[in-house]
Amino acid sequence: MSGIAKVAELAGVSKSTASRALTGAGYVSESTRARVIAAAATIGYVPSTSAVSLATGRTRTIGVVMPYVNRWFFAEVLEGIQEALLEHGLDLTLYDAKPGSAGRRRIFEDFLARKRFDGLIAVGLEPADDELERMRAIDRPLVTVVGEDPSTSVVAIDDDHAVRRATEHLIALGHDSIVFLGGGAGSNWAHVDRRRLDGYLEAMADADLGDHVRHVPSDVSLPGGYAAAVDLLGGARRTPTAIVGVCDEVAIGAIIASRRLGIRVPTDLSVVGIDDHEYAEMFALTTLEQVPRSQGLAAVELLLAHIADPDHAPRQVRLQARLVMRSSTAPPATHETAAVGDMRVQRRRFADE
Amino acid sequence: MSGIAKVAELAGVSKSTASRALTGAGYVSESTRARVIAAAATIGYVPSTSAVSLATGRTRTIGVVMPYVNRWFFAEVLEGIQEALLEHGLDLTLYDAKPGSAGRRRIFEDFLARKRFDGLIAVGLEPADDELERMRAIDRPLVTVVGEDPSTSVVAIDDDHAVRRATEHLIALGHDSIVFLGGGAGSNWAHVDRRRLDGYLEAMADADLGDHVRHVPSDVSLPGGYAAAVDLLGGARRTPTAIVGVCDEVAIGAIIASRRLGIRVPTDLSVVGIDDHEYAEMFALTTLEQVPRSQGLAAVELLLAHIADPDHAPRQVRLQARLVMRSSTAPPATHETAAVGDMRVQRRRFADE
Repeated sequence: MSGIAKVAELAGVSKSTASRALTGAGYVSESTRARVIAAAATIGYVPSTSAVSLATGRTRTIGVVMPYVNRWFFAEVLEGIQEALLEHGLDLTLYDAKPGSAGRRRIFEDFLARKRFDGLIAVGLEPADDELERMRAIDRPLVTVVGEDPSTSVVAIDDDHAVRRATEHLIALGHDSIVFLGGGAGSNWAHVDRRRLDGYLEAMADADLGDHVRHVPSDVSLPGGYAAAVDLLGGARRTPTAIVGVCDEVAIGAIIASRRLGIRVPTDLSVVGIDDHEYAEMFALTTLEQVPRSQGLAAVELLLAHIADPDHAPRQVRLQARLVMRSSTAPPATHETAAVGDMRVQRRRFADE
Repeated sequence: MSGIAKVAELAGVSKSTASRALTGAGYVSESTRARVIAAAATIGYVPSTSAVSLATGRTRTIGVVMPYVNRWFFAEVLEGIQEALLEHGLDLTLYDAKPGSAGRRRIFEDFLARKRFDGLIAVGLEPADDELERMRAIDRPLVTVVGEDPSTSVVAIDDDHAVRRATEHLIALGHDSIVFLGGGAGSNWAHVDRRRLDGYLEAMADADLGDHVRHVPSDVSLPGGYAAAVDLLGGARRTPTAIVGVCDEVAIGAIIASRRLGIRVPTDLSVVGIDDHEYAEMFALTTLEQVPRSQGLAAVELLLAHIADPDHAPRQVRLQARLVMRSSTAPPATHETAAVGDMRVQRRRFADE
């Protein structure tokens, strides 16, 4: 006897009723469904999901496309998505679409077209125009984490606002020589990094520090921030009194570089980041907190709303990052005490010689 | 006309032949298959994969179960697996089974039983006995990355050997006060960390340093290593001249702690790790290199061999980690000025007193 036949017999229903109860395709009363599920559990029967998919037109799978899984933000979002999907009994199919890779081309050309998912979450993907077109052509609900396409539901922090607050925090402490570190390496700008730079430029302009702005590009990673900061802080050119990192990893790289060069944080240099990365506490980094795991959870809930109701209007969820004060920021040394102040003036003079 | 009917017409074959050619279920000549594929490409037809699954009994999906995705080793293995699967046109379904979580219970109780994959790769899972039983009951090929079950194919480095070499390297430099840092926090031992501790204990015993062994537990993470090292190095008790980190993240945490405490690496303290983590270069960390991405690739190839041939014998792939010399290790400070040859003899004498 087939598995479904056994379940039907045990529950005292027809095979087709048992099948409807287990696959969700077609009506069955709640009490009957409960009896069938109990019968299936008794004999350990699990319906073939391929058959379920054909019957319901649903794959019970959500596709997730992201450019990296080995970076803090992406890994945390992924964990949030997974947690929510497990809760809903849905599978997660991962598409790791590293920029410029052969795998990415294959994902956009072949994998997505197979539509082996009921909906798609794209995380920080920065799709090219043709990639965006392909994602739209799939005709499955799409939610993006990080992004600004008004035709799609988006979950993100308000990046511009977060960096504005970080910069204003430094200005309020008395800094005017503030560098924005990170992003734009090899003129390779992610939209999110560009938006963060904009927040810095706006805050500087608003404080009449427009002619003090300085952007130092770097890879958006801890080693990237470290390397750029070694150049910036170890060079002959006048060094800044404060750094806004495009993200915590870059900011922490700058702190590590400072320690190596004997520059004291925050006495000689204030550093602020964006993220509240898992290492932020260890480096006493003042930062703007975002919770990528929650963004993953929110993206799943939004996507399920779109799947349940194809006419659900796109929603733009913009979260406000929260300032977390630690001890990597302080007033610039010149303001602290006269003695320290003199030292710095002296240092400047040497540097200019 | 349905998609498959259009493809059949264009290719000049029957619908059932077109279907066989596209799903791989049943024989069709190579020239016919090529014609059908060309026709499908022309009209942009992609077969419904649910239908393909039912026809072939294959899901074209590989399941990956891992306890974390936000740690270096796991993220790198995952990227290797993804790269190989994209190459083979297979989907990756991720099961993120965090130890002790409700999600993990659900994965083992419900998700795996659905068998929505042709085979399973378990990465550093450290399954409990009942979990292991459930994985075996699924009756799908299984390959583990990290592990030692002789009934399953395993891809891993020789952990014992790697730590042995790390410890011997320090002993050869003249150290005898060597601490093994990490693992066993809250008596929570991962097998892999226990094996690494064994390698340390063996190397110490072989060098007649058995009564110098000291294990300091910590969470197996960068902040974990940092916190434990702050306690170890900042305390009143005699501090070691060298540390073997259970992995690079712990070793790097120890280096960061040293810098904060004003302890010079390698002058006052030598530190060696296991991994060659992406941050190892930045901290000039001497380490034993493993390449988790390659382990992911190897696991996929092994799994596909098992899927193609159910009688394929289990294979234990043990990779040798390679010593990468950087500048976090040096002879202990007390012996620095003496001639290197004399040094070790002298030091041994002290140790014996």
